[in-house]
Amino acid sequence: MDRSPLAPASFPALPAIAGVRVAVTRAGYKNWERNDLTFVAFDEGTAVAGVTTKSKCPSPEVEWCRAALPLGRARALVVNAGNSNAFTGSRGRAAVEAITARVAGAIGCQPSDVFVASTGVIGVPLPIDKAEAGIDAVLTAPEAGWEAAAATIMTTDTFAKAATASAMIGGRKVELVGIIKGSGMIAPDMATMLGFIFTDAAIAPGLLQAMLDQANGKSFSCITVDGDTSTSDTVLAFATGKAGNDPIETIDDAGADAFQAALADICLQLAHLVVRDGEGASKFISITVEGAESDGSAQRVALSIANSPLVKTAIAGEDANWGRVVMAVGKAGEPAERDKLSIRFGATQVARGGLAVEGYDEAPVAAHLKGKDVDIGVDLGLGNGRATVWTCDLTHGYISINADYRS
Amino acid sequence: MDRSPLAPASFPALPAIAGVRVAVTRAGYKNWERNDLTFVAFDEGTAVAGVTTKSKCPSPEVEWCRAALPLGRARALVVNAGNSNAFTGSRGRAAVEAITARVAGAIGCQPSDVFVASTGVIGVPLPIDKAEAGIDAVLTAPEAGWEAAAATIMTTDTFAKAATASAMIGGRKVELVGIIKGSGMIAPDMATMLGFIFTDAAIAPGLLQAMLDQANGKSFSCITVDGDTSTSDTVLAFATGKAGNDPIETIDDAGADAFQAALADICLQLAHLVVRDGEGASKFISITVEGAESDGSAQRVALSIANSPLVKTAIAGEDANWGRVVMAVGKAGEPAERDKLSIRFGATQVARGGLAVEGYDEAPVAAHLKGKDVDIGVDLGLGNGRATVWTCDLTHGYISINADYRS
Repeated sequence: MDRSPLAPASFPALPAIAGVRVAVTRAGYKNWERNDLTFVAFDEGTAVAGVTTKSKCPSPEVEWCRAALPLGRARALVVNAGNSNAFTGSRGRAAVEAITARVAGAIGCQPSDVFVASTGVIGVPLPIDKAEAGIDAVLTAPEAGWEAAAATIMTTDTFAKAATASAMIGGRKVELVGIIKGSGMIAPDMATMLGFIFTDAAIAPGLLQAMLDQANGKSFSCITVDGDTSTSDTVLAFATGKAGNDPIETIDDAGADAFQAALADICLQLAHLVVRDGEGASKFISITVEGAESDGSAQRVALSIANSPLVKTAIAGEDANWGRVVMAVGKAGEPAERDKLSIRFGATQVARGGLAVEGYDEAPVAAHLKGKDVDIGVDLGLGNGRATVWTCDLTHGYISINADYRS
Repeated sequence: MDRSPLAPASFPALPAIAGVRVAVTRAGYKNWERNDLTFVAFDEGTAVAGVTTKSKCPSPEVEWCRAALPLGRARALVVNAGNSNAFTGSRGRAAVEAITARVAGAIGCQPSDVFVASTGVIGVPLPIDKAEAGIDAVLTAPEAGWEAAAATIMTTDTFAKAATASAMIGGRKVELVGIIKGSGMIAPDMATMLGFIFTDAAIAPGLLQAMLDQANGKSFSCITVDGDTSTSDTVLAFATGKAGNDPIETIDDAGADAFQAALADICLQLAHLVVRDGEGASKFISITVEGAESDGSAQRVALSIANSPLVKTAIAGEDANWGRVVMAVGKAGEPAERDKLSIRFGATQVARGGLAVEGYDEAPVAAHLKGKDVDIGVDLGLGNGRATVWTCDLTHGYISINADYRS
């Protein structure tokens, strides 16, 4: 698969995170010539927080992480690519238990200190023998760089994705690094969004969780490629505490705001990278809804627009078809009044107060739609609710990836 | 546009409906060489019922019909094709008022006895001069057949759609004829689903409305092409009372059950015709969900599957990707337990109790998916709720229709 036309020019320069050691190996989950098992070891004292899919049919890895997260401690992370282990019944659960037990035995920790995520084909139990052999190999493998880790967690992604941010906490600089995979809420055979954030900040796990929840609400929860929700979506944040800052325990502590801002920044960067690798994407689309009765209502309207096949195909065709935006507002089921509705493409108002702006200048609209970054604004004219979401267009590439290539 | 590969072989033979007169003309709403204005006159005493879009941004035609329906009387129907008149502010409302006033003046009835529906491009006010000239012409035009009417209400449809049914009411045979247009919940430029049913039965309008609501819940509300909801969707049923049956006033009257069954039958036939003309469709897909906690829950799960781009592209690729069905069940937000979930393609069970059926015979599944009619069954294993919905696959044809051809 060609690299997405929306991909960044190069992989970013990323700092090391004290207390984090990364290694990769080839477990051979699929018949391919590439690494597919990522192992991350954390020093003692590492805090963890996470968000997982809302699917009612989650993978056993998701269930494992959900059970372990309240304890707030992490010593290791294992990420398997090529097999999501979802919908595999008791055999899937056995695979997760075997992986976590083996790692815990080798590094001397509780199994609940070991986090696992898997991505790839579903319905096929993760082969336990390959996982165990892979873990044995990766435990003695040389340390790997971030780019190797970001590449090893990929499935149908067309480029390795990572981002960085930093914050000053009481005179100490703390660093954050994140890697993510996903090229659709779901890609073929249920490849999924898996994101991992690593920081050397000292922060209490409960606060890290609250901050991650908040950042997630403005980043990973605001992107969509096809409206489909994976059985395996997982974002985990690990904080080693090695930066030497006074530990942040509450949101009122010095540096808490700065860290929250840095975490929000890196989450948004990572979320945007997923959209930029959306299956078949040729445009990166920002949709801002203002004037809604609440922020939540604004987000639901924005997602209705972002998930509309007719809006997404219109953008692919570089067609300023604002009628389809009206349609998507109308179907969202949220408070809206046709005769208060205004719509803009880029900076050009095309509809206002329930009808087309007569004689609006089509030239800047056409020029805006020809670019790779498209910005749609909707004002419902009802209240102060506001939200922005991000998506990509719907092209022949999406159909080719998901229909033409058979599993 | 080529005729859909899922279209019936020919237009059906349809009976005349006593008390109904049809005519068509060319108002010239678009620059095309075809009729685009359909006029139907009803004898005095005709009852009417209707269902309209749930969009929060409906067209003025929809608002007009909603206001007139509670009166229960109809003398005329005007259908404009090529311009939906939606999102056109006060000028759109003025067009509807001009049309209904002109018809009412000509045939001697109240404007509220005149029903209007329009379909086509949005954001452009319906030209009142063309509408008025068209009405003047159609009022003196020769009577037209059902096929002409079904063709005249089309926009991007690839074939004219109609169906018939009949029922015995107290020894009298009553006839029903329906015509419908739509090739997607929405087609390019907001062409929409408009359906009209005509019967010579004598039936009270309130009961007709209740029966239409019930039939709609199992037909038009159970189909989806792309999950997009039009600003103009309208289905109207007109009953002239000329069959000579004893009027049906309540559901307990003789013949009420038979008429309800005939109405449900014709609604389902018409709904299926819309799916069979779904944009780019190559497969007609039935999705049945059983074992849900309620019928409503079953319907929401079934629509989640039917609207999933990943399920629809898998079927287009003739790929028995039941993992995508699991995903769509999981994202529906309805009660579901992964380990009670069973899935079949055609008659072959492929997953049961939360995992793949080991060694299921792939040959009949592959053969089933190669056909034009695909049947997917899901058993949630929780209760007695049940629903069936119908959709089509998602193909390059959909993208071509909606992205490649610019408005």
